[in-house]
Amino acid sequence: MEKAEIGLIGLGTMGAALASNIADNGFRVAVWNRTTEVTRKFHADSDEEDLAEQIVPTESLEDLVAAVAEPRAIILMVPAGDPVDQQIAALRPLLGPDDMIIDAGNANFHDTNRRARDAGDLPYLGIGVSGGEEGARFGPSIMGGGKREYWDRVAHILRAIAADHQGEACATWMGEEGAGHFVKAVHNGIEYADMQMIAEVYGMMRDGLGMDAAAIGDIFGRWNDGVLQSYLIEISGKVAKAVDPESGQPMLEVIVDAAGQKGTGRWTAIEAQHLAAPIPAIEAAVVARNLSSRRDERAAGEALFGPAPERIAKDLPMEMLEGALIAGKILCYAQGFAMISAASKQFGWDLPLPEIAKVWRAGCIIRSTMLDDMAWALGEDPNRNLMFAGYFADHLKTHHRALRRVVSLAARNGIAMPALASGLAYFDTMRTARGTANMIQGQRDFFGAHGFERFDGRSGQHGPWGRG
Amino acid sequence: MEKAEIGLIGLGTMGAALASNIADNGFRVAVWNRTTEVTRKFHADSDEEDLAEQIVPTESLEDLVAAVAEPRAIILMVPAGDPVDQQIAALRPLLGPDDMIIDAGNANFHDTNRRARDAGDLPYLGIGVSGGEEGARFGPSIMGGGKREYWDRVAHILRAIAADHQGEACATWMGEEGAGHFVKAVHNGIEYADMQMIAEVYGMMRDGLGMDAAAIGDIFGRWNDGVLQSYLIEISGKVAKAVDPESGQPMLEVIVDAAGQKGTGRWTAIEAQHLAAPIPAIEAAVVARNLSSRRDERAAGEALFGPAPERIAKDLPMEMLEGALIAGKILCYAQGFAMISAASKQFGWDLPLPEIAKVWRAGCIIRSTMLDDMAWALGEDPNRNLMFAGYFADHLKTHHRALRRVVSLAARNGIAMPALASGLAYFDTMRTARGTANMIQGQRDFFGAHGFERFDGRSGQHGPWGRG
Repeated sequence: MEKAEIGLIGLGTMGAALASNIADNGFRVAVWNRTTEVTRKFHADSDEEDLAEQIVPTESLEDLVAAVAEPRAIILMVPAGDPVDQQIAALRPLLGPDDMIIDAGNANFHDTNRRARDAGDLPYLGIGVSGGEEGARFGPSIMGGGKREYWDRVAHILRAIAADHQGEACATWMGEEGAGHFVKAVHNGIEYADMQMIAEVYGMMRDGLGMDAAAIGDIFGRWNDGVLQSYLIEISGKVAKAVDPESGQPMLEVIVDAAGQKGTGRWTAIEAQHLAAPIPAIEAAVVARNLSSRRDERAAGEALFGPAPERIAKDLPMEMLEGALIAGKILCYAQGFAMISAASKQFGWDLPLPEIAKVWRAGCIIRSTMLDDMAWALGEDPNRNLMFAGYFADHLKTHHRALRRVVSLAARNGIAMPALASGLAYFDTMRTARGTANMIQGQRDFFGAHGFERFDGRSGQHGPWGRG
Repeated sequence: MEKAEIGLIGLGTMGAALASNIADNGFRVAVWNRTTEVTRKFHADSDEEDLAEQIVPTESLEDLVAAVAEPRAIILMVPAGDPVDQQIAALRPLLGPDDMIIDAGNANFHDTNRRARDAGDLPYLGIGVSGGEEGARFGPSIMGGGKREYWDRVAHILRAIAADHQGEACATWMGEEGAGHFVKAVHNGIEYADMQMIAEVYGMMRDGLGMDAAAIGDIFGRWNDGVLQSYLIEISGKVAKAVDPESGQPMLEVIVDAAGQKGTGRWTAIEAQHLAAPIPAIEAAVVARNLSSRRDERAAGEALFGPAPERIAKDLPMEMLEGALIAGKILCYAQGFAMISAASKQFGWDLPLPEIAKVWRAGCIIRSTMLDDMAWALGEDPNRNLMFAGYFADHLKTHHRALRRVVSLAARNGIAMPALASGLAYFDTMRTARGTANMIQGQRDFFGAHGFERFDGRSGQHGPWGRG
């Protein structure tokens, strides 16, 4: 029997979708799942899509290895964490020294760093795959990490199955070891913040302006024709317009306001703290998800502190909300890319920032028109904060007033806008040459004799302070 | 020669101050430093304070051990990290099975957990000591961790040297293993946020209202007679009023606006993320310190985006600023104590929340009158969010309008107030029974088939979504 060009272990939702995608693009793929029944069913089902001939079902790890052409490449799509280590331990003894293992799951990049080092001279790749089930099946965004030569060996397959953006495949090598999984983590952090900012604007429309879900859906739909054009704005419009078939109510009135999380946003926040890279919008989004799940406490809070104390300005134009979201989004992405830049230096990765913007233009959750312009801006100067790049600086000059108006209106009227407010505070901090940390340095020197720098260039001074 | 009641290793700034404090309270203390000259000089200098007779200088680890009465207790005051492990490795073989090592340095509590476990049945304590050099010398706040029986053995010394608050010693056993160092870390996180909020209010006075440093100092001085009474408000007033003897300028005009950090605030932020305990005010303060050091970028931002776009309202009453700071401070402390409560459950520590508020009332940097009321409120119900406790809820009912006015004024006029704005967003999130995470759940289900809960109690629904 003709050998497969690639192998794949793990036929869960994402693994099955990726295997079908590979087969659909004309590559022969051998598959194996711990439960043989799952493998058999997957192969049988694939017949419906006319993919069965491209898929080689196997019923043991040994059979899987035997079914793949040498030098082999075998993708792991198993749950992140220990299962990956266990699968590597089971698989590696069956492989030759040129055979490659590719972890395409949701690994923490620190684990990928470790596994790549443990692999030594044995080929190992860690790739971040974004886009959910539909992305995996029909074209995800793929962020690769590991030795460049390993990536080059399988790039033709990964590019073929990736999303296409105007003729360019959204599959790119990011750097050594865990670089691909790191970039994927930042993507997820930005995703958290983007979703949170949309939810905040939704809250202003619902609670501040009294708009119903359908009207809100119309607004998102209209915004999707403008600067905000993106997958998340598009689906927010569809979510707002959807109607529960059972109750006839808008779906948004049916869904409980407690957001789950898999922890990827949280991991990005932790890593940003380690890197000393400020990403307040993403931190605010993680906090918001945490607080959303405390529904009992929030109900107690409402009972205690009552509704908004003042009348909402009903005359807020939709253009103001749109502008606030444009400004907030730019500031959030600026933070995310600055974090990537910091990691690139810290880890010696030389991450290709413009290519990262490009690889996110299709296939992944945060895909948006704006990323096209970001790729261009980062191509000019990858180390410049995006908020200073011409196109985005112009947007901020235009829209910061809208962000100010919306954030101040929310603050006065009791509507929570943590991510947008943190974006504005970031903007104002970054446009204030003379900040207020001199007070903090004075305090620190007062109680801890930490010393401080002087504007006249001298340093290390301590006091004198009046201690009377 | 009469044996010492306790030993101490490491005569740096903090170690020397603590040894003098111990001697000053009538306990005989044997001291050793890696550099003998330091030990000799410390002993010679102690003569000036009439403490030389209580201090036993030793010139080898063996001599130190021999100088301390059995069962021994020896305090380590060496730099956190590897030096602690090295010192333990050198010291332990010289000790008997009942002799105790006490790490009173700035250990990360995870390290203290590990060292306590590694010690097995050998007595080990990790204690957090707060209050800087002056606190260490004349009365710090002491947070103990380790087996209770070990704490009890040395509590009479630790209570004697600790700060006194109306007859109560600020030295308390917090729980097993690293509990003391953990509580100290949260203290430092709160300290970051408290300092940042003060700096933000200073910024509004300086940039928003055009007040000079002396006038600002007067305001802080006046506030120190009210609800805000605290060490940090007191020293902020003194810092603002201090004059540089060289230039005759206010010190605040001389000190560069770039704040340093030792990373303790950052470690608290990281730990909060691991615990899923929201502390946005502390996170905002850490971000603010990071951004303060980027002076070149901020100068570029000011050149690009110019000054505040609108006229500042000069008629902002000082009572509004005071009220905003009261509300912001309560919300920040509520977050900190909620994090301690989360850790208590997560680590099985049973941390004594009212006692923590009490131990912070004197000796440490965040000491304040408000902590008296917090101790009382936490005594009523340690698991209730402080913002819901009667006294603090009343303050929030009174002052949230001031916080709203100040935050919205800052937002409109380009003054960065990240910590106060995040506090307000936290308040508004916690008083909104019906939040906006239903939109996030809708988005997540749309792209990831995550499912969602319904208000009618059913769960696990997916869609249907219009995908046309």
